[in-house]
Amino acid sequence: MTELINRTRRAEPRLEVAMAQMPVLGAIREKFAADAPLSGHRLALCGHVTVETAVQVLTLVALGAEVAWCASSASTTDSDVAELIRDRGVGVHGWRGMSEDDLLRGARDVLATWPEGPTLVLDEGAVLITALHQGPEDAPRPVLATEKTPDGLAALDRLAARTPLRFPIIKSDESFGKEAVDNPHGTAQSLLETILAVSGRLLAGKVFVIAGYGRVGAGLAERARGLGARVIVTEVRPTRALLAALDGYDVVPMAEAAPLGDFFCTVTGAPRVLRGAHLARMRSGAVLANGGHRPWEIDLDELDALTVRRRPSGPGSEWHVLADGRQLQLIGGGSIANLSAGRGNASEVMDVTFASQVLALQLVLPRVAGLVPGLHPLPPECDDFVAAAFARALGITLPAETPDLDAFTAVPVGGAR
Amino acid sequence: MTELINRTRRAEPRLEVAMAQMPVLGAIREKFAADAPLSGHRLALCGHVTVETAVQVLTLVALGAEVAWCASSASTTDSDVAELIRDRGVGVHGWRGMSEDDLLRGARDVLATWPEGPTLVLDEGAVLITALHQGPEDAPRPVLATEKTPDGLAALDRLAARTPLRFPIIKSDESFGKEAVDNPHGTAQSLLETILAVSGRLLAGKVFVIAGYGRVGAGLAERARGLGARVIVTEVRPTRALLAALDGYDVVPMAEAAPLGDFFCTVTGAPRVLRGAHLARMRSGAVLANGGHRPWEIDLDELDALTVRRRPSGPGSEWHVLADGRQLQLIGGGSIANLSAGRGNASEVMDVTFASQVLALQLVLPRVAGLVPGLHPLPPECDDFVAAAFARALGITLPAETPDLDAFTAVPVGGAR
Amino acid sequence: MTELINRTRRAEPRLEVAMAQMPVLGAIREKFAADAPLSGHRLALCGHVTVETAVQVLTLVALGAEVAWCASSASTTDSDVAELIRDRGVGVHGWRGMSEDDLLRGARDVLATWPEGPTLVLDEGAVLITALHQGPEDAPRPVLATEKTPDGLAALDRLAARTPLRFPIIKSDESFGKEAVDNPHGTAQSLLETILAVSGRLLAGKVFVIAGYGRVGAGLAERARGLGARVIVTEVRPTRALLAALDGYDVVPMAEAAPLGDFFCTVTGAPRVLRGAHLARMRSGAVLANGGHRPWEIDLDELDALTVRRRPSGPGSEWHVLADGRQLQLIGGGSIANLSAGRGNASEVMDVTFASQVLALQLVLPRVAGLVPGLHPLPPECDDFVAAAFARALGITLPAETPDLDAFTAVPVGGAR
Amino acid sequence: MTELINRTRRAEPRLEVAMAQMPVLGAIREKFAADAPLSGHRLALCGHVTVETAVQVLTLVALGAEVAWCASSASTTDSDVAELIRDRGVGVHGWRGMSEDDLLRGARDVLATWPEGPTLVLDEGAVLITALHQGPEDAPRPVLATEKTPDGLAALDRLAARTPLRFPIIKSDESFGKEAVDNPHGTAQSLLETILAVSGRLLAGKVFVIAGYGRVGAGLAERARGLGARVIVTEVRPTRALLAALDGYDVVPMAEAAPLGDFFCTVTGAPRVLRGAHLARMRSGAVLANGGHRPWEIDLDELDALTVRRRPSGPGSEWHVLADGRQLQLIGGGSIANLSAGRGNASEVMDVTFASQVLALQLVLPRVAGLVPGLHPLPPECDDFVAAAFARALGITLPAETPDLDAFTAVPVGGAR
Repeated sequence: MTELINRTRRAEPRLEVAMAQMPVLGAIREKFAADAPLSGHRLALCGHVTVETAVQVLTLVALGAEVAWCASSASTTDSDVAELIRDRGVGVHGWRGMSEDDLLRGARDVLATWPEGPTLVLDEGAVLITALHQGPEDAPRPVLATEKTPDGLAALDRLAARTPLRFPIIKSDESFGKEAVDNPHGTAQSLLETILAVSGRLLAGKVFVIAGYGRVGAGLAERARGLGARVIVTEVRPTRALLAALDGYDVVPMAEAAPLGDFFCTVTGAPRVLRGAHLARMRSGAVLANGGHRPWEIDLDELDALTVRRRPSGPGSEWHVLADGRQLQLIGGGSIANLSAGRGNASEVMDVTFASQVLALQLVLPRVAGLVPGLHPLPPECDDFVAAAFARALGITLPAETPDLDAFTAVPVGGAR
Repeated sequence: MTELINRTRRAEPRLEVAMAQMPVLGAIREKFAADAPLSGHRLALCGHVTVETAVQVLTLVALGAEVAWCASSASTTDSDVAELIRDRGVGVHGWRGMSEDDLLRGARDVLATWPEGPTLVLDEGAVLITALHQGPEDAPRPVLATEKTPDGLAALDRLAARTPLRFPIIKSDESFGKEAVDNPHGTAQSLLETILAVSGRLLAGKVFVIAGYGRVGAGLAERARGLGARVIVTEVRPTRALLAALDGYDVVPMAEAAPLGDFFCTVTGAPRVLRGAHLARMRSGAVLANGGHRPWEIDLDELDALTVRRRPSGPGSEWHVLADGRQLQLIGGGSIANLSAGRGNASEVMDVTFASQVLALQLVLPRVAGLVPGLHPLPPECDDFVAAAFARALGITLPAETPDLDAFTAVPVGGAR
Repeated sequence: MTELINRTRRAEPRLEVAMAQMPVLGAIREKFAADAPLSGHRLALCGHVTVETAVQVLTLVALGAEVAWCASSASTTDSDVAELIRDRGVGVHGWRGMSEDDLLRGARDVLATWPEGPTLVLDEGAVLITALHQGPEDAPRPVLATEKTPDGLAALDRLAARTPLRFPIIKSDESFGKEAVDNPHGTAQSLLETILAVSGRLLAGKVFVIAGYGRVGAGLAERARGLGARVIVTEVRPTRALLAALDGYDVVPMAEAAPLGDFFCTVTGAPRVLRGAHLARMRSGAVLANGGHRPWEIDLDELDALTVRRRPSGPGSEWHVLADGRQLQLIGGGSIANLSAGRGNASEVMDVTFASQVLALQLVLPRVAGLVPGLHPLPPECDDFVAAAFARALGITLPAETPDLDAFTAVPVGGAR
Repeated sequence: MTELINRTRRAEPRLEVAMAQMPVLGAIREKFAADAPLSGHRLALCGHVTVETAVQVLTLVALGAEVAWCASSASTTDSDVAELIRDRGVGVHGWRGMSEDDLLRGARDVLATWPEGPTLVLDEGAVLITALHQGPEDAPRPVLATEKTPDGLAALDRLAARTPLRFPIIKSDESFGKEAVDNPHGTAQSLLETILAVSGRLLAGKVFVIAGYGRVGAGLAERARGLGARVIVTEVRPTRALLAALDGYDVVPMAEAAPLGDFFCTVTGAPRVLRGAHLARMRSGAVLANGGHRPWEIDLDELDALTVRRRPSGPGSEWHVLADGRQLQLIGGGSIANLSAGRGNASEVMDVTFASQVLALQLVLPRVAGLVPGLHPLPPECDDFVAAAFARALGITLPAETPDLDAFTAVPVGGAR
């Protein structure tokens, strides 16, 4: 008992800080809680058991929902947070050290919280939604769900190819917040921070090679240059290669970049971007990081084949000593660097994507009758709400708030977003 | 006769330079001319009579088309260029000093070049396409057309609301080249150059206010900051306002920015962005420019109402002296600054959009049978061709050219462009 | 007579604009004119006859001096301005089309304005100061002089090696304004503007090669990158080469940069930086500009030797067609580009250096008795005055102006400037 | 015994990495070790007992010196490194947990290593040099010394005011490496990394207030902007305030900046830059860091007076909860943030300053006979060597290395560094 109280106490200050640093969810509570728009709803939620998800859960509760929460990953589960939230009356199915089986059992338990099942689902990795398609066709169905990860959406595409989807699902992954805040700013900063912290190197004057000029790659390039690096981009798509060149970066094939780079970061989504042929020609001391979601962008088998000795170099990285004495520093074992060797996104970045999910349920609910079962895009008003709330948290005065509203002209119909 | 030869001689060197500075059209000629894919086609073209359009016309001729060309604007018509191209066997309907009636007559003459009418139309402002919808329903129709301006596409939307469109029309305005090269790079540089040239001011340390953070605004902001300006952005759309803030700019309502700015440039598309209430509070010496297509973003009536005296200040601008002695410098009379007071986009920027139009006809033609009459988007392979050719002209090695092709992995299906 | 009045009228508006755009000289007038610190002094001034020097002259008059002015260059002399200033009672010795002999005669005439000679000298190119060392040793001497150009100071060093200098001379060339405003901001912007205006090219994605990473080179590099160029620096001094690399630029020998560049700008001060061996390997279309004071950084003889044909390309540049058909565009004939093909520095940049000269006389005068004859550095309080006045003109609140002065702590003794 | 071997083994890999990341010291060994220029010299060294100093010590040994080393700080002493170096025959006086008395005793022991005293001194904080001025006047004296810290040089100035200095001392603090590499790049990156790591915040869109626009401040401003922050500078010196404005930053008094900032970093060298009046008006959540050497730039007494509760927030920072509920996050207790809450400069940055010290002894030694006792500047050839070696380590080809040497022109005499 004392232990539980202690756990709760330990997590409380962190929750308080996360609350303060997640202003968009705060704006949702402030604006909508009085109306309790989710009142009467049973909401099943799958997500990492962290303080940030706790803020999301408490927001859903504040909107009137009854929530049950299962962990989406054993390694990230914070038992102190779980206790704290249980203490506030939310069922949390997750604890440090749980097994993969425990995770699946947690998901089933969450769905079984209510005999008639949940009415709303906020999912991660499509775990709950997939489970809800395995029961009998006439089992109770939620009225609305949302999925936030690309992997989850891919799984739902595969599911939809096999069986008709049973209820409307909002794709909250493809949001303004993800594309304009999380990717180019949050993830890019987080990756760069991790690479610098783990390598302990000066960036000014160094050659920083970025494979892939998507949103994360473009944000990373800008930041590396902002710290004085000489940035080289490699790209296979002509349009993105041209964008990188027009932004002032050198664009060359990886075969040319390999012997020049001091740092390499892959953010392509594709496999084997850094391969043996490249690794074999790198400068000694080069730092290798992968920023893509899958641990396949650096070919670890070919790296191992070249390696005669490994030497840990502090938490989060390892030196690979090659036969000729050159050394390459691999960050986070080739898994996504900012999660495997850093602390991931800032709370305020998660705020943006977590808020999009909440809004995907709350703002769509009043017109859910008009939605056919299947996947649907996130409505633009969710993006507008998130952008406005985030901007205000940055101290920016938006037109609607100012008495000088008249100073602003109407947006032309069809104006570019 | 001698005069004609002289004219041709005068334009020849400029055409040669433009040819060299329009490498994407060059790549089209190089790759496709041998196959003469437009052979047997009668192509009606409406466009400014300039060296750049001449390069486009000669490219179409090189692809096998028979071309007739009418001027889209009297003021831009370069009679020397007209002679030069006539000399090469293309009918050109345009001369310096022609009237609005002459323009319309030119369009009709171009369409009347062939008894059975054109088979292809490359239009600007929907002049030719509109005319082709005014004749009898059973008049001969082109098999394919393309329109490159936003105003032209708006006119076609209005036309389509009244009558069924008679043939497929490719919207070459919405291209990668326009959105990723012309707007953020070409137009932004051109606007900044014009503002600096006409005002003769130092930019470092000055407050540069940009109204509208669309593609042109974002490119302009980056460039002004790159020259040392302190940039302030005004925006009414929450998503774009947030983007500007995340890119590091101050974002405030225009009412707050007005008394701070040394330079103002409007790029919103909306009317009356700078109004009397703002003009009345500006610092003496402030420079006003509009970068939007319509001359309505600066309220000229309200500026005139505040003005007690006007004083020309070299070509392209005028000082407005206000009652209290403050002076505001208006560039290009409030019309789009880089055209009214500068020289517009570089040849190499026009190359990108002109090439998109050519490809809109040439690459679509083989499968035109599958297209219903009406408006169609530009196919992505046009963007890829343009991007690759432009990138190569910048000296960039793209994967397909390198023996190390194997160094590049496949783009994942659905990979973000 | 009418003609004179017309001339005066023509120059008046330009003088008014220059007055408004030279706030540091304005601050000198505002703060000191009431005390007339130069009252009773006869001031001989040598300088370009332009509106900007006119503002300087009028400032000296406002401080109480009696001024006589001779032109420092025939080509820059603006007869309208000369009339306007004569009209205000200042002797001006200069007119459009004067010869080199006329220039020297003007200098002598200015010194002969007063039987006892001038008491103060504000010189350019050491013309007046040199003349004052050619008469008999016991001729009347000024009490104080200042020289503002590097060439003039070099001439004075040579003079001092032959004969003792006869009076104190303040080196106003080595000022904060010159080093921190004029070079990295004024000249760098002016060079870039000229190169873009004359070449008519897009800068984004292009390779911009800068020879020499001194103050102008560093400012130019930052601006070219700010417009999207890929910047390459060449440097022979290891310290400056390292600075360039740490600022994120590629640093290579010119022999490597030559075949890569789209633009080349030399700002080294050294001769033959771009030579035949480099010119022979450049890409067709490359643009060549010199930003150094002497027309020797591009080896014009070797360029001519490679050239088979020249072709003017608008004002300010010429295409050099080489034997293999490649073409190089030479700006301003290889002379300093922003003066030979552009309009030079902005009025507000001249303001800074012109004000330093005025302060070099005015602030030193009260303690001139303590100065031995010879060259002396500009006192730091001149720099502080200039910086503070320029900063205020930019709208910046400096501590001394604010009631919150207490919010600022004392500068530590010996604090870095 | 086994323990000692283990310690040596623990430090060995770290020493190996540091060796690889300190290429300038490596270049000294490579170029000069064969000549053993310090052969026969007894060198007393005071410095932090870390792997980086170990690389410096081993370099001195490689140059032929006999070295004795005392710790300059108890808290930084790494006993494993001490063992490793002792193992190589160098006397090391330092161990984890030593007292202030132990430090002084270590210094005396080092000087007593040899009966005739050291011939060379490489000092930190003037500890050894001061001790060498306390003995009898006729005690043996070193022939040459160097001091690397500003505090040490200030102490020597005070010492020189009391008693004549007894031998020549080179001021290796005022070096190119310190001013151009360490301050604007190394320290600036290190400060920013620490602030981001400790606060866990996103930087894009945030207001980052920098007090003091010296070399560190300018480097910090550029980096914060490079990560998307909106940067505000406060400055009391007009020249530096103007520089900041011309670089595009907002410059306002701290009283205005205080309510706007999300992050504050002081780098002025002056006391009480952030005071109660400022702290009282800050936004909740603001992060406070000091980057100056003394812990006085943030007024900790006034912060404590406002604080009603403190709450640790991970290692390196503490939340100060104010009476009205606002919270301020203080990094590193107000001591220099990158040392107190981060890991300080990268090895490669120390390399630059450590190499300057070695060169200050080695390159000056041959002409020490011509030096009078007292303080002397670092000779420019030391800077050139350091710059060239560092540039080469960055992969930059310098003229002297290339067969195309002819491609480089002579530096003009007196060319600006």
